Formats: sequence, structure tokens, C-alpha cells
Amino acid sequence: MKKVAILGSTGSIGTQSLEVIRNMDNIKITGLSCNQNIDLLEKQIYEFHPEIVCVTNKNKAAELQTRLRNNQNKTEVVTDTSGLISIARSGEQLLITAVVGMIGLLPTLLAIDTGIDIALANKETLVCAGKIMMDHAKDNGVRIIPVDSEHGAIFECLRSGNKNEVKRLILTASGGPFRDYSAEQLQDVTVEQALAHPNWNMGKKISIDSATLMNKGLEVIEASFLFEIAAEKINVTIHKESIIHSMVEFIDNSIITQMGLPDMKHPISYAINYPKRLPCSLVNSMDFSKTFSLNFSEPNYKLFPCLNLAYDALKSSGTAPLVLNSANEVAVELFLKKQIKFTDIPKLIHKVLDQHIIINSPSLDDILEIDNWARKIAYNKGVK
Amino acid sequence: MKKVAILGSTGSIGTQSLEVIRNMDNIKITGLSCNQNIDLLEKQIYEFHPEIVCVTNKNKAAELQTRLRNNQNKTEVVTDTSGLISIARSGEQLLITAVVGMIGLLPTLLAIDTGIDIALANKETLVCAGKIMMDHAKDNGVRIIPVDSEHGAIFECLRSGNKNEVKRLILTASGGPFRDYSAEQLQDVTVEQALAHPNWNMGKKISIDSATLMNKGLEVIEASFLFEIAAEKINVTIHKESIIHSMVEFIDNSIITQMGLPDMKHPISYAINYPKRLPCSLVNSMDFSKTFSLNFSEPNYKLFPCLNLAYDALKSSGTAPLVLNSANEVAVELFLKKQIKFTDIPKLIHKVLDQHIIINSPSLDDILEIDNWARKIAYNKGVK
Repeated sequence: MKKVAILGSTGSIGTQSLEVIRNMDNIKITGLSCNQNIDLLEKQIYEFHPEIVCVTNKNKAAELQTRLRNNQNKTEVVTDTSGLISIARSGEQLLITAVVGMIGLLPTLLAIDTGIDIALANKETLVCAGKIMMDHAKDNGVRIIPVDSEHGAIFECLRSGNKNEVKRLILTASGGPFRDYSAEQLQDVTVEQALAHPNWNMGKKISIDSATLMNKGLEVIEASFLFEIAAEKINVTIHKESIIHSMVEFIDNSIITQMGLPDMKHPISYAINYPKRLPCSLVNSMDFSKTFSLNFSEPNYKLFPCLNLAYDALKSSGTAPLVLNSANEVAVELFLKKQIKFTDIPKLIHKVLDQHIIINSPSLDDILEIDNWARKIAYNKGVK
Repeated sequence: MKKVAILGSTGSIGTQSLEVIRNMDNIKITGLSCNQNIDLLEKQIYEFHPEIVCVTNKNKAAELQTRLRNNQNKTEVVTDTSGLISIARSGEQLLITAVVGMIGLLPTLLAIDTGIDIALANKETLVCAGKIMMDHAKDNGVRIIPVDSEHGAIFECLRSGNKNEVKRLILTASGGPFRDYSAEQLQDVTVEQALAHPNWNMGKKISIDSATLMNKGLEVIEASFLFEIAAEKINVTIHKESIIHSMVEFIDNSIITQMGLPDMKHPISYAINYPKRLPCSLVNSMDFSKTFSLNFSEPNYKLFPCLNLAYDALKSSGTAPLVLNSANEVAVELFLKKQIKFTDIPKLIHKVLDQHIIINSPSLDDILEIDNWARKIAYNKGVK
């Protein structure tokens, strides 16, 4: 039995991971965590019987503890970052980090130091502390297996050659709901329009990131750290059908792509089973009896400036990607609260980056501090 | 230096192989062969300085020998099948078999027995004697590396998983010049129309095979032997742009594809360099700054019966694929000579197959004998 823990088991990736695991017979769930959705976590406890769970919200943790005691369930309940660390370390073979935000960073690093492989769905850890993460992984001989469709695709395609034979990575982007909009149309888009993603059913934050193309920008940064490849060697192509999930071009100009129906359960299942491939009854096979088209075009960098902001931050390196990410989180929040316009999102991020003095090799403390600083500045600039 | 010999160096694949090798500095050409184009072979001798060349046409061999003697060139000239065998064995690390037809079979088998890896562009050897070929390769620990875009693509894609993780192979087919024709239109197609292939610049025989879809049928048979996979697990999809060269679906429903501009020099270069990938300045990189579409649809099995004839022959196994191939060669020849109609090609093949009593495990002698028998029957039925 493979012992697996999940940070963020009640979110979108967390629940889909458990759905995949429900159909497997060689996985033992050791630990689960959530922020505050204890109703769902409680159900997961009765089904998967983890030894330990963490609820970061302290009041909710106490409430869950009482409920479990009343039901004579012996699963231990912990809280706080220290609790998350216990969860992370309980997954002896694999930790799935499906939390959103910087809260995943410390537990993930400590799991890596314990020698536990990471199935990484938490973008922020790579964007904000990519170098630290990858250095820890290398020092401990730990695999970081990406759990999203683009990096998962690249991870699969890279098997077709050696690392030094890679010429460039080509990330596909759906282009979001506004890919065919004019500058004028973008001025007036509403929150509701931005939340309606054409291909994927996602959370609010990532839906907005998808509409601004910041999602792809963050993925470029992730890819750069994860696959140790320079910004100049990572391209983005708009592929509205989301069937080809990404590509690798090798030095012989041969392009290997990974494709399939858009379904997060594939990269989840691949990451859990890696290096093996196992059937996953939840993921459908593509139907070639129907006529279909796959379309590709260049992103409109002018109308979607977030993509170039991300490229620039990656090239500046150091703490620039971190500040980009923190400022973007605030900007998206303000847009969702209808306090700023859709087109203000890149402007606000740009302002915060402009004020930031980059630290080249930040410590973990630097990272947390600058994250706070960037959020504060973004709020101040955004709400005024 | 890697010692490489080429059987069929004056044909399309042969000349393109030499073009690729001209740009490499780690290859020594040891032997070359042609049927009768000694003008081109002579030029190749002066450029690549092989130790030995074979001209299967005896008169032409003698003529070349005289020319070389007059030019004080010391390259040895041989002839006949025994001569081809000497060429095959001269390529100590790799034999590129780019001849057309059954003539490639014996030299290729003997090279395999000598332990020489094979870059195989000669379809007939696999179609007519697939089991014998693969058994010899296995016994001698020899690699058979396909030199054509579809099998080369599959060969690259297979690296992304284990053999027992393969669910199906999906061969892409341009569909040829008549893919959108009606049954009525197909009745009247001319030789000239059939020779105008939309994407690839090829020889006459393969152009007609492409128009009838028999080319794809033969490739299904090749793939089955080469990758040891049942007919039922090989699909064909029409992809008119010839950008995705083929695909592998794994048991997790993940599809890995290989793509690039249609250029035979890629699979040639890949086969020569395998397992390494090296840059090939002759092969252009795909341009993602332009908008483009990739289209897929099901083949029309009813209008192009050759494809199902091939599937049926493969399922019947034994000598059925051999007879299919021999009858097809004659049928194409008769069509090119305007002695039969385009739509008669599958009918003629079907008649020959109908008369054939399959031998399950034929010897080499059986193969040669049945090949002759099938051709004779095809001629008789075709010209009457």
C-alpha cells in the first residue's frame, strides 16, 4: 500500500484526488486537511479513515474534534501550520498539495526534507519559492510531480527525450472567455462573464486568472522552475479546445504533445501512479469516430498584458514572481468585489512590481515578508 | 565514427538519407546500392567514398566498374543479391534499407543476423515477412528503427510509457487526393490525379497507395509486426494536414502524439541518431506565430476498401498480408499503365486473396514462391 496524504482535501483538486483514489486499491490515505469545510472533511474521514486530519481554522478544528468524539471515531484532529506539517509528513510515499496559496509552502518543504514525493497542485509554492523548492527536492532526491494539465502534459512528453535535448516547451492556453474580445469590449467585462470558462470547471480565482491569461503567465513561471528551463525557451499558444494539454519541442524540431479530453482526473491519476500508468475509469477516452478540429494561434500580448508581466517577472527572477503573484491575488479579489475593472488587474500588478526592489536569493522569511508587503501595497493602490 | 550502409541509395529515402548524413560529422558510409541509376551512384561514390557498392542490374554494374577504373577509384563494385548482402553487412552499426520491394528481405535478414541495427524504410520486409524479421531481430538483440513518419512518430511516442501500458496506436493518414470524392467521382479518376499528393512528394507507387489508402493499410500491418500489437488495437484517423504524424494512446487514456512539418528527413535523422536526438538543420521548426488548424475525421472504409482489405489480411495473418502486398503491387502497376481503373485496384486484390490458401508459418522460400504466385494471378485477372 502506498501511503498518501492530501493538503486541501475539500477543494477542487482534493476532492477529485479522492475520487481517483476511491477507484484504486493500493492507496492508504494517512492524512487530510482543509481550511474550514469540516462537513465535507468529516465525510471523507468516515470513508477514507485517515490517521490524522488538520483543520487550519481553530474553531472549526475544535468543532470537528467534538463531532468525531461523539461518533467514537479515533482520527486525530490537529490545527495550524504545525498541524499541516503533521499531515504532510504522514503521507510516507506521496503528498498531494492541493491547498491554495502560500500556506502550502512550509509543509511541502518539510515533506520534501522527509523524502516524500510531492504531487504538486499548489502553484504558489513554485511561483513564489521555486528555487528553494527545487533545491530541497534535489538535495533529498524527491520527485515533484505536477498535478495540472499543462505541466503534467510536459512531464509526460519529456519522457520522449533527454533533458539536454529539450529545445522549448509550448504551453497551450484556452485563451479564456475573452480571447476574441476587442480592447473596447474588455473594458466592460463583468465578474459573471469572467467566471464563465469555456472548457474547465474551476474555482473563481483561477477562472479570473484564465480570463486575464495570468494563469498561463504563472504556469510559465512554474514550468521554468519545475523543468529548469529559461523563460526564453517557454512559449504559449492559444488552443481553444483544450485537447492538446502542452508540448515539448526537442532539438531535432520534433514536437511531442500530450492530449486527451479536458479532465483534471488524468493528471491527478498520472501523478499518483507515476512512474506507472494505470487505467482510470473516471477519465474518458477520446472519440476519433467524430470529426474534430484543433486550433492554434498566438496570444494577444497587447490585450492581455498579464502574460508579459509574468515573463518579465520570471526574467527579473528573485522575488519578482512572488510579488507578481501576491499583487495578482489582491487584484483578482478586488475585481471579484467589483472594486476595480477587469483591465485594472494588470495595471495594479504593474504598479506594485514597479515599487518592488528585487531580492535575488530570498530566505523563507523574506518571502513571507515580501508577500505581505506586496499585498498591502496592492490593496492601498487598488482601493484608493 | 558510426559505420552505416544504405540499400537503395539512389531512391527517395536513400538520397534524403545521404542529405542528412552530409550534415553530420560522425558517420562513415561503408556501402551503397542501387538498381540501375549508376550516374547518381557514381556521384555518391565520389562524395561519400564507400568501400563497396552494389548495382543489382549486372550490365550497369559492369559499366560502373569500368567508369571507376578509368577514374582510378578503388571502390569495389558487386552485383546481384549476394552483392546486396555484402553491402548490408558492411554497415557495422546501422543498415538503412531504403530499397523498394522484396529484394530487401534477404540482405536485411542477414544484416540482422550479423547484429547490425536496421533503419527500415522498406515496407515489404515487414508486411511480407514481419514475423520472421522480428524473430530474427529479437534473437540477435537488434533494433528495428522505422524510417517513415507514422511509425517513426509511434516509436518516439512509445517512450512515454511501457510496452504493456499501450492501449492502441492511432495512425494518421492524409487521406490522399480523393478523400472528399464521391463514389461516382472515384470511378473516373486518372493516373495524373492520383499522382498529385497534397502533402508529400513521393514516388509513383506510394502516391497511388496513398490515394487508395492501401498505404495506410500496409502501415497498419507494419505497425502490428513492428510494435507487436493486434490489428484491433490499431486505428486510422484522417488528418489532412499531415502535421501530427501518429499517436499512441496509453491505458490511462492519455494520448501522446508526435508532430512537425511533413519532412521525411526527420524520421531519417531520428533513426540514424537513435537513441540520441541531434539537431538537423534540414528540418524546419513549426511556426506557432501563425494561426493553424489540425483536422481529424474517420476514414471512409466503404469508398476506400483497401484499408479493410489490409485489416482483414492482418487478422487472417500467415501469408495473407504477403498476398495482399503482391497483388496490390501488380494492381497499381496495371493502373499506372491505364489497364485497369482506380476502383478496380481493391477488386483485383480481393480476387487474388480469395484464391489464396493461407500458410500460417511460411518459410522464406514459401514467401518468395507465394509472392510469385500472387503476382501471376493478379496479372492474369487484371489484364483479361
